[in-house]
Amino acid sequence: MDTQKALDDLRTCLGQRLSLSKSDLDLHGQSESHFPLSPPDAVAYPETTDEVAHIMAVCARHRVPVVGWGTGTSLEGQSQAFSGGVVVDFSRMNRVLDVAQADMVARVQPGVTREALNEELRATGLFFPVDPGANAALGGMAATRASGTTAVRYGTMRDNVQALEVVTAAGEVIRTGTAARKSSSGYDLTALFVGSEGTLGLITELTLRLHGQPEAISAAVCAFDSVGDAVATVIDTIQCGVPMARIELVDEDSVRAVNAYSGMDLTETPHLLLEFHGSDTGVREQAEVFGAIAADHGGRGFDWATMPEARTALWTMRHNAYYAILASRPGARAIVTDICVPISRLAEAIEETRADLARAGVAGPILGHVGDGNFHAVLMVDMEDEAEIARAKSASDRMVERALAMGGTATGEHGIGVGKLGYMAQEHGGGWAMMGAIKAALDPDNILNPGKLVPPRT
Amino acid sequence: MDTQKALDDLRTCLGQRLSLSKSDLDLHGQSESHFPLSPPDAVAYPETTDEVAHIMAVCARHRVPVVGWGTGTSLEGQSQAFSGGVVVDFSRMNRVLDVAQADMVARVQPGVTREALNEELRATGLFFPVDPGANAALGGMAATRASGTTAVRYGTMRDNVQALEVVTAAGEVIRTGTAARKSSSGYDLTALFVGSEGTLGLITELTLRLHGQPEAISAAVCAFDSVGDAVATVIDTIQCGVPMARIELVDEDSVRAVNAYSGMDLTETPHLLLEFHGSDTGVREQAEVFGAIAADHGGRGFDWATMPEARTALWTMRHNAYYAILASRPGARAIVTDICVPISRLAEAIEETRADLARAGVAGPILGHVGDGNFHAVLMVDMEDEAEIARAKSASDRMVERALAMGGTATGEHGIGVGKLGYMAQEHGGGWAMMGAIKAALDPDNILNPGKLVPPRT
Repeated sequence: MDTQKALDDLRTCLGQRLSLSKSDLDLHGQSESHFPLSPPDAVAYPETTDEVAHIMAVCARHRVPVVGWGTGTSLEGQSQAFSGGVVVDFSRMNRVLDVAQADMVARVQPGVTREALNEELRATGLFFPVDPGANAALGGMAATRASGTTAVRYGTMRDNVQALEVVTAAGEVIRTGTAARKSSSGYDLTALFVGSEGTLGLITELTLRLHGQPEAISAAVCAFDSVGDAVATVIDTIQCGVPMARIELVDEDSVRAVNAYSGMDLTETPHLLLEFHGSDTGVREQAEVFGAIAADHGGRGFDWATMPEARTALWTMRHNAYYAILASRPGARAIVTDICVPISRLAEAIEETRADLARAGVAGPILGHVGDGNFHAVLMVDMEDEAEIARAKSASDRMVERALAMGGTATGEHGIGVGKLGYMAQEHGGGWAMMGAIKAALDPDNILNPGKLVPPRT
Repeated sequence: MDTQKALDDLRTCLGQRLSLSKSDLDLHGQSESHFPLSPPDAVAYPETTDEVAHIMAVCARHRVPVVGWGTGTSLEGQSQAFSGGVVVDFSRMNRVLDVAQADMVARVQPGVTREALNEELRATGLFFPVDPGANAALGGMAATRASGTTAVRYGTMRDNVQALEVVTAAGEVIRTGTAARKSSSGYDLTALFVGSEGTLGLITELTLRLHGQPEAISAAVCAFDSVGDAVATVIDTIQCGVPMARIELVDEDSVRAVNAYSGMDLTETPHLLLEFHGSDTGVREQAEVFGAIAADHGGRGFDWATMPEARTALWTMRHNAYYAILASRPGARAIVTDICVPISRLAEAIEETRADLARAGVAGPILGHVGDGNFHAVLMVDMEDEAEIARAKSASDRMVERALAMGGTATGEHGIGVGKLGYMAQEHGGGWAMMGAIKAALDPDNILNPGKLVPPRT
């Protein structure tokens, strides 16, 4: 590795768009969760695919690590340069290149955020549905295989990325997928890059699937006596084929936190937060079916509203829930958990987690994308208190053990990075070695986001 | 390669379930399309995953090619042993292992056919939607990334395979994916194996996503003056968010063939064949919206029926269309085309294809999954007439050129095998070499379905 020579070469091409300032390096060494500061050697701000290819070729020549950066909102340390090297910040590649209305796709650069794309789409009658909460960059969302509140209806990034342009470890530009909606032509490289966390290449362009803005939207909240009743309601609703756009669970601890933070006055019991999309008739029908099922399971206070203001308040509250929970204990940092289990085991997984956290004395309000079987306990820790950190990490370990024992996964949507690396062998067995073989074939010098996702190079 | 030693070793394990009979070898050397007979050296009939692993280990040791076989209905020569070796016939691995109703998934062995699975599901209220026409084995459908008439609503095999068990080139058993509906844990190996045509491993178990049987189903046909009018209707309908379950185009030549074969009396103009799934209200609403849009584009004779008999007749007719077309010219074989383009270019692609075929004097009725932009011209040839074969192949080449120029793909659902290998470099550029690198990493001795999909090993 010859970092200085690489930086000299990059300076020639990028000029002031190669930053070595301490504040910039520190900014790109931060994480939204509990990982330590890890400033890279430099931050590059490319404006074109050719510049990204040049950066990769230079770094490949000098064996310098390259780490992609969207908005820095990943939660498992994916965008941190723990081995040093160059962080490629895509914030200047933030153009919507094309919106093909008849084909219902948009071509975007990786630095476009999901909110910026939807702003641009507003007048077209189309929208991009994947919503992880944070206003993340779409390149990062693809690299993380992000999802969020709407996945139950519209799928994850896996389902909504149709094609990619990628710069390989050698600095070559390739295209995966086509402008057609489906293809049986060869290995699904698009799916391979979605969720690869920058370890196989840098995404420089995305073709994303758009959906028609629904004619009608309604939102609702519903209180339950127990998590079990709420989850049983979700299972029955899905089985009845009600195409809910969002169905979120907040447990009583989360309700308490959001009441305080967002000035709500929900009763302090588990709640489902819901959204229905469809025609006027369809939305009414969906809400009625849901209401009847919820009543069967003791749901209370179910009421649905089509007023945009009420909806916005509800989802703003849900999106701020992570910050609301952190604010409930000033100064705390979060160890964020993200397990996903078969929905038939979800109530059990949540109840066991709550009991375990109570026993361990760890504060961890729970919220979840229950239609997918995915939930988060936000474990709050004082970063000065090593004993507390150890208790929280050990509770997080047990959550993953529980998820794997139920046939689930260590991460529904946050990815691996370094935070979940320790579970890969157990979750994937021989499949993890296969991932390592693919990584070695496509990035033989291990310069693309080294130390993340795959087994350590031996 | 030491085929004889491999067969001796396999005989010890499989006994009579290793077949060397000429009739069996010939049966497994056949194709539904125009490829020449290519009998393998032996056909193995494993009953368990362990036996498949053993077969792979033996063949790896002796460097003998291994080719998977479901029902032999692939159309691009995928299951033919052009390099000899052992065909692994999964017909004895045909059990539905588990149906998890709350989780809406089924675990099946690869030899289960889609109709057998749906028969087993009948009483559960669930069904498996992917329908390529042929009653194919689900392992083969996954390996081919098959789709068909319902992909517009329910997606392709890419979207409906949640997890796999796979035997690798070394004879190791791995699992990809989990029982949870989503995961961000590592590379998407499930998606990598779906569509890999047996070149990376043998699928020995599938976890498939099920859907609720719709409360109501209605079907319809609608005649149009031109393909352009029919396609414009499809685009408007999709943009209005009507969740059609099937929307199929048959051109006038196909109408003529199915009229003769299935005793229908459709007017000889392009038709859309439709199916709507939903609640009683929803299906009525969908049909009304569609009817209004079709009328705007000159659609005639639109009428929808909820009678199961009428629906069955309609889709039996559609599924038999390939055979109807072949029967329209007794003794002919088919060169089947399968291009897929952005839907905005579909009418143009079909009209140019029709004009080109007329000019070239090639008979090629067209039918298509128009909601996906995917259509087939069934090019009929006399296998004794080399000039005609050359004309048809050259027309097929031009179809692919046209599709690629429009941003589409050489194959929407039939896959590559050997039939579409010649288009891979042009369609994928550097991505094809990347596929070759992945293949070399996972199957270094090139024994898994050699000669298919990836670049020739240099």
